[in-house]
Parts: sequence; structure tokens; C-alpha cells
Amino acid sequence: MALSAAGDEPRRSAKWVARREAIVDTSAGLFAQRGYHATGLTELCTANGLGKGALYHYIGSKEELLAAIHDRVMDEVMVGADRVADAGGPPPAQLAMLGDELLDVIHRYPDHVWVFLHEFPALTGERAEQFRKRRREYERRVEAVLRAGVASGAFRDLDPRLTALAWLGMHNYTYLWLKPGGRLSARDVAKPFAEIFLRGIAGA
Amino acid sequence: MALSAAGDEPRRSAKWVARREAIVDTSAGLFAQRGYHATGLTELCTANGLGKGALYHYIGSKEELLAAIHDRVMDEVMVGADRVADAGGPPPAQLAMLGDELLDVIHRYPDHVWVFLHEFPALTGERAEQFRKRRREYERRVEAVLRAGVASGAFRDLDPRLTALAWLGMHNYTYLWLKPGGRLSARDVAKPFAEIFLRGIAGA
Repeated sequence: MALSAAGDEPRRSAKWVARREAIVDTSAGLFAQRGYHATGLTELCTANGLGKGALYHYIGSKEELLAAIHDRVMDEVMVGADRVADAGGPPPAQLAMLGDELLDVIHRYPDHVWVFLHEFPALTGERAEQFRKRRREYERRVEAVLRAGVASGAFRDLDPRLTALAWLGMHNYTYLWLKPGGRLSARDVAKPFAEIFLRGIAGA
Repeated sequence: MALSAAGDEPRRSAKWVARREAIVDTSAGLFAQRGYHATGLTELCTANGLGKGALYHYIGSKEELLAAIHDRVMDEVMVGADRVADAGGPPPAQLAMLGDELLDVIHRYPDHVWVFLHEFPALTGERAEQFRKRRREYERRVEAVLRAGVASGAFRDLDPRLTALAWLGMHNYTYLWLKPGGRLSARDVAKPFAEIFLRGIAGA
């Protein structure tokens, strides 16, 4: 059986798509626990209850599986960013909403986010490039809100890139301790974080 | 040759200690690039120019090597925290100094910090416990400065734990982009980060 090339997307049944998503989720848990490089095809097959041929039918290759885990995170993050852009409003409210959305994804997808943040260097070629582009696209959304706030006077004069990196660090790093079923909800964290950050960059 | 147990520390020559440190540094680079689980003893031997017996003579076991990488980071971080405590001064200045020190370690030890932040779940038993304790001890230093600031009125009423996690995230996450030889020095980043954070938590 030939592996399907990246970007080759034949029409698939809803059942095929659902099964593939389940495989992506299960494998994210495995990669998060064992690491991408250390996880063999045999373990992936066992965890997913599939033979090698059947697994390849759904995922194409181990790296394609890794890319799918990254896409799951980026898809959710970009949907959140679009929702914020659609909602509109002044830059401080936009930034607070972006934080809400981001922490919600981190809270709902702990394994995927762990893999996303730890294993991205394992993506190669076109997949690595695609991932960098999407990640950069999201960062630009954050930077755009910061620039808009500086322009409106809501934020003080600041370096949008460095400030976006500070904001991203504060929020992304919650993947280490913000877990489903934990004491804190995503909103419990997003609110005080927004308060710190918005006061921190407020205009005079 | 029996592996030396953790905590078993016979007196060693300065030459032995220096060679061991060099092995720790070289191996940190390898783990950062390939991942801990995926890096075999053969690769460690090749990278360090040593046979297996000689490598074990210096490091005892692969996990002991991982623990030594963690210790290198924690030693530096705690030395910095002690320096800040010794310097004294009001809580806002203390927090800014802690940020300077932390970013300096991240900037100087990119490989070690990468391994520290990604591979800590691979530590087991006593080593995992020791790591958690030291990490927690550092977090408590940050929380203590925040509490002191709330008590003095320099900081507004805040949750010291959650605020410390926000601060740690903002600073630790720089490991992804703050690199030796890069455009920005540790100080270039520490200063605007301290500005954001101190304004963000300032008392009325």
C-alpha cells in the first residue's frame, strides 16, 4: 500500500474522518507520554487497535500524524482568534478575549498542546514550513491588537513583537499546570492574567 | 563495573569533576536535539569520545546524566535567587532582579534549559522528587517577593501563586527564542518584561 502524500486529500467518508480524528487524539496522548521519537509504530498500532496497514490507511506516516496533532491545536487557536476578530471591540477587550480563547484550547487539549510545544522540531520540510507559517500568523494577530492599542492610546508605546512574546509566554506556559478536572478553569486563569497584562501595558 | 548509586559521592579529582561537567554539557546538546528517550548510550559515547565503561565512570547512568543537567540549571537559578535575596531592597526591585537573573540563565544555557523544561517527566523516584522540591523552592522565592509586595502596599492584592505562575511563564517561555548570539541580550528582554509585570501588579 502506497503512503498518501501530504496534501493529497481524496474525498473520505465521515466515518473515515471520525476514525482518523480518534487516532490523532489517542496518538497525541501516547506522544505526550513517551515522546515522538521514542514512540514506535508498534505502540501506535496497539494503542489504536489497528494493524500497520490500517494505521497507514488513516495517517499516511508517523510524521503526518504529528502534523495532524499540530493542526488540531492550530485549527482551534485560529478559530478562537477569528471569533475575537468577528466580535470586534477596543484593543484591551480584544486582547482579553484572545487570552480566554487560548487558555480554553490549552485546557481542553493538554496532550495535543504538550506535543505541539515539545515536538515541533521533529516536523520537516513542507510540514515544518506550514507549521511555522500558521504559528506566525497567530502571533501576528496578537501583535496587530497590540499595535491597534498603541495607535488608539489604550496601550503605551511598546515593542509589539516583544510584548506579544511576553503575552504568549504567560499564556502558553499554563500547559504545565492548567489541566482538565483541575482546581482552576481556563477562565479562572484568563481573568487575572488579563488584569496583569492590561494594566502592564495600559496607556498613561 | 557497578554503577554508583545516586547520592554516593566519593571524593573526586578536579580533573574528574571538570570532565564530568563537560560530559553533562555535551549531552545536554544531544538530548535537546534528539530527545532524552531517543538518545542511546552509543550516541552519548560517540558525542563524548568515550567508551561505555568510561562514560559510566563519570555519569553512573543515563538518568543520572539527565538529573545532572537539571541540577546545572537549578544550581544557577538558585545562585541567582540567593544573590537577589542578599542584595535586598523593596519587592519591585527584587522581582526585577529575579527576572534579570532567570533570563540570564536561560540565555546562557539554551540546551540545558530545553532539556530541563521538556524532559523532567523522565526523572523517576528520588531524582524526580529532588527536582520537584528544588523547582518548588524557587517558585516559593518568587511568591515570597510577591507576598512582601502585597504586605508593603507596593503590589495590589493578588493571588501570589497564580501571579508567580504568570511571571514564571512569561520568563521561562523565552527559552524558545532567546538564544546566545541572537539580536537580543537577556537584559534587553528582562527590562521591558519587568516593566509590564511591575505595572501589572502595582498597588493603587
